Amino acid sequence: MISLTPDLDRQSDVPLYQQLFSYLKGQMEAGILKENERLPSIRQLSVYLSVSKNTVETAYQQLLAEGYIQSKLRSGLYIMALEKLELEGSGAKTGTTLGSEKTQQIPKSSLPAINFEYGDVELAHFPVRQWKKCMVEALEECTVEVYGYGDRQGQAGLRTEIARYLYQARGVVCSPDQIFLSAGTQTMISMLCQLLPLPKKIAMEEPGYNGVRTVFRNHGREIIPVPLDSDGLSVELLKQGGANTVYVTPSHQFPVGIIMPVQNRVRLLQWAYEHNGYIIEDDFDSELRYQGQPIPALKAMDTGDKVIYLGTFSKSFLPGVRLSYMVLPELLAKDYRSKLQTYSQSVSPLIQAAMYRFMKEGYFESHIRKMRKLYQARHKTLLRVIQELFGSRVGVIGQKSGMHLLLDVYNRSSDELIEQAYQQGVIVYTPRLNWLNPEECPPSYIMLGFGGLSEEKIRDGIIRLSKAWFSEM
Amino acid sequence: MISLTPDLDRQSDVPLYQQLFSYLKGQMEAGILKENERLPSIRQLSVYLSVSKNTVETAYQQLLAEGYIQSKLRSGLYIMALEKLELEGSGAKTGTTLGSEKTQQIPKSSLPAINFEYGDVELAHFPVRQWKKCMVEALEECTVEVYGYGDRQGQAGLRTEIARYLYQARGVVCSPDQIFLSAGTQTMISMLCQLLPLPKKIAMEEPGYNGVRTVFRNHGREIIPVPLDSDGLSVELLKQGGANTVYVTPSHQFPVGIIMPVQNRVRLLQWAYEHNGYIIEDDFDSELRYQGQPIPALKAMDTGDKVIYLGTFSKSFLPGVRLSYMVLPELLAKDYRSKLQTYSQSVSPLIQAAMYRFMKEGYFESHIRKMRKLYQARHKTLLRVIQELFGSRVGVIGQKSGMHLLLDVYNRSSDELIEQAYQQGVIVYTPRLNWLNPEECPPSYIMLGFGGLSEEKIRDGIIRLSKAWFSEM
Repeated sequence: MISLTPDLDRQSDVPLYQQLFSYLKGQMEAGILKENERLPSIRQLSVYLSVSKNTVETAYQQLLAEGYIQSKLRSGLYIMALEKLELEGSGAKTGTTLGSEKTQQIPKSSLPAINFEYGDVELAHFPVRQWKKCMVEALEECTVEVYGYGDRQGQAGLRTEIARYLYQARGVVCSPDQIFLSAGTQTMISMLCQLLPLPKKIAMEEPGYNGVRTVFRNHGREIIPVPLDSDGLSVELLKQGGANTVYVTPSHQFPVGIIMPVQNRVRLLQWAYEHNGYIIEDDFDSELRYQGQPIPALKAMDTGDKVIYLGTFSKSFLPGVRLSYMVLPELLAKDYRSKLQTYSQSVSPLIQAAMYRFMKEGYFESHIRKMRKLYQARHKTLLRVIQELFGSRVGVIGQKSGMHLLLDVYNRSSDELIEQAYQQGVIVYTPRLNWLNPEECPPSYIMLGFGGLSEEKIRDGIIRLSKAWFSEM
Repeated sequence: MISLTPDLDRQSDVPLYQQLFSYLKGQMEAGILKENERLPSIRQLSVYLSVSKNTVETAYQQLLAEGYIQSKLRSGLYIMALEKLELEGSGAKTGTTLGSEKTQQIPKSSLPAINFEYGDVELAHFPVRQWKKCMVEALEECTVEVYGYGDRQGQAGLRTEIARYLYQARGVVCSPDQIFLSAGTQTMISMLCQLLPLPKKIAMEEPGYNGVRTVFRNHGREIIPVPLDSDGLSVELLKQGGANTVYVTPSHQFPVGIIMPVQNRVRLLQWAYEHNGYIIEDDFDSELRYQGQPIPALKAMDTGDKVIYLGTFSKSFLPGVRLSYMVLPELLAKDYRSKLQTYSQSVSPLIQAAMYRFMKEGYFESHIRKMRKLYQARHKTLLRVIQELFGSRVGVIGQKSGMHLLLDVYNRSSDELIEQAYQQGVIVYTPRLNWLNPEECPPSYIMLGFGGLSEEKIRDGIIRLSKAWFSEM
């Protein structure tokens, strides 16, 4: 048997099958597991690693679905040539025929997996040619500005383009001097924690974005959960919490999807002015709004310079650039430059220079227009098929914007729903980690991200979910 | 007069002329200050901004030297076309003739500036073609792995290449599972602060690298300074400090340049094993060693798995990739995966995929061989010219490796030395911020980085320094 030594962590929240899948994939990509090698049988590997057969089976199923391995009749699972994989293009590979040998116990569903993972974006429509052109031009520039550490705050030209974009798209008036780049939103939150004066309390929407909450907690901040009402974060309850800094997602509450109405925005700003507090506004996917008039960013209404505005290119453009930015109130911008002056910029200047060109040439805005239409069509299809097939057996939460929605599958539990979906080759998620106490997440909630799935796949996925969840009813 | 509103911070440690220079440069790069616009005279701008004429003059001098502006006889300073700048290539532009109008009071030296900044790398010899090829191949791959968020720990293939390199070059035996990537060393230190258990005390060499010390302090850690002896960090004094985590640079002490002998390494490891402590070994430029036998990394001797090894591509390759990595002891690697599991990777997967190809193709190792020779020649020239021209008037500190050295210009003070150098168009630095209490840095110390300067420029720079510092003696 090939030597496999995955470092499986049973304490982790990452499921074991996921850990095993990542390990095997990594070994193949690294060339440690080689083309045409035979994988151990499910039984062998489950005994060897002391995990359930189900764990191994699910990891194998995912590898099959993504085309890393293939099944040969009556003989087992084999590793495919990696070059071949690369030629076949991106994401989950279609056209892989799964075997059905008894010894392998490969899933009833011989279909490729459909993954409703939040955060996936559409690559088939990505403007590879233009982006490549911009990257090549940046590489050819070959200056210290592009090949060295770069400006600590971020390339001035790119910051100017961002300022221009924010004014046009979000009504935010700011100078490039107030804009600071960072390699992703979590890195930026870490910088903010180092910048912002104590006290230690940070108020957050409950439920709220776990990826950010974790960073606050890892910096020793105490999270004050503020319940939502129909208008989003309740400013009344915020006052009771006693924090003077609050993190909010007013344009599209994560994960519940509420768009904060203007009256509540005014209340929130008043709170900040009265309490000399700061509002951290995470405007992560405001580009994607499908119903009603666009509401400008909270920052656009902020006459008292108390809103810290966070933006990212991960949703509107590409996660792979790892490029987020913030607009700091002038006082904090000054503090940043003195307190964090020894910090190098974390975003590669190569990426920055390419992004600058991409925006300047107008590619970025035309890409956003295209994507908004594309995601809107997907969103519409998703809602329609859910309505057709699930009817009154589910509630849909947060359906006006973004790249995900929540389903309330009445009287069912997510563990069971996720497992049943898996049997049909569909991967769905629970949003529970976004609750400060995950036990308080309604067990019937399921999160569906649709950014990376075509309309056809969305339809197919919901049909399979209908079969998985409701066929025996 | 064109509208100029720089946000000058008089409290900052960044000199005012530097702030003004950066601001003007940014405005030009952003196209806010346009080609052929006339800059205000030195007197006008100094009155307008309430800064000294010297500040404005120095900022203008730097802009002239870098070719951002040009002087027209009897008429003033004008902004140059940016396109033209880009065509002229990297770094400080040569061939710019500086004017000598009385009204402008432009420096006596009409020569281009020579900047002995630490951290600059040689771009003229950078393998642009190969790197571009690798980047383009990565872009053309167009998979979720490259265009999405990427593996949280870093691309498996690249981690395998790094593991292989570390074994060959540094004697470090580790699995790719123990390697974690991060967008620069400071971002990585922040991750370490979030990962490592308290207590809060971190011991550091005194003097020691300020860029890292600041991050520790901004995460609420208390710095325990441990004085150096001729063997580097004194393990005896480390014991007295009571910390159980220490940050060290054994292969090339920053900024003093001591290479820790093997006996002291053994003592340091014993300390970690006896006190159940962790050693953070920053091996930032171990590739560049010019005298004596290479000493393997401390991590290579670490039988008790107590060394956290930090490496970076900023010195050996290119700061612009913003790519550092650490090798974690197995226990910590496990903790990282569970405690920091929601963190996205901060290094762009595009850059990772290109770097993977660059290493796999062997370009990286041949680049290092080339650079080592190149830097060695520069280092030799620098030492020889210093010896010739300065003789016994200076002491040279830390001359066995790396991309910088320290000068002790006996009985002089760095403020004066820096100013005098400036008058000759040479930019030199004080290393004082690397002392926990900067007042304790001997005032006669000057830091010379030579990574970005050709042998010719090094020679020219030292000749000018000799004129600046010793001509009237």
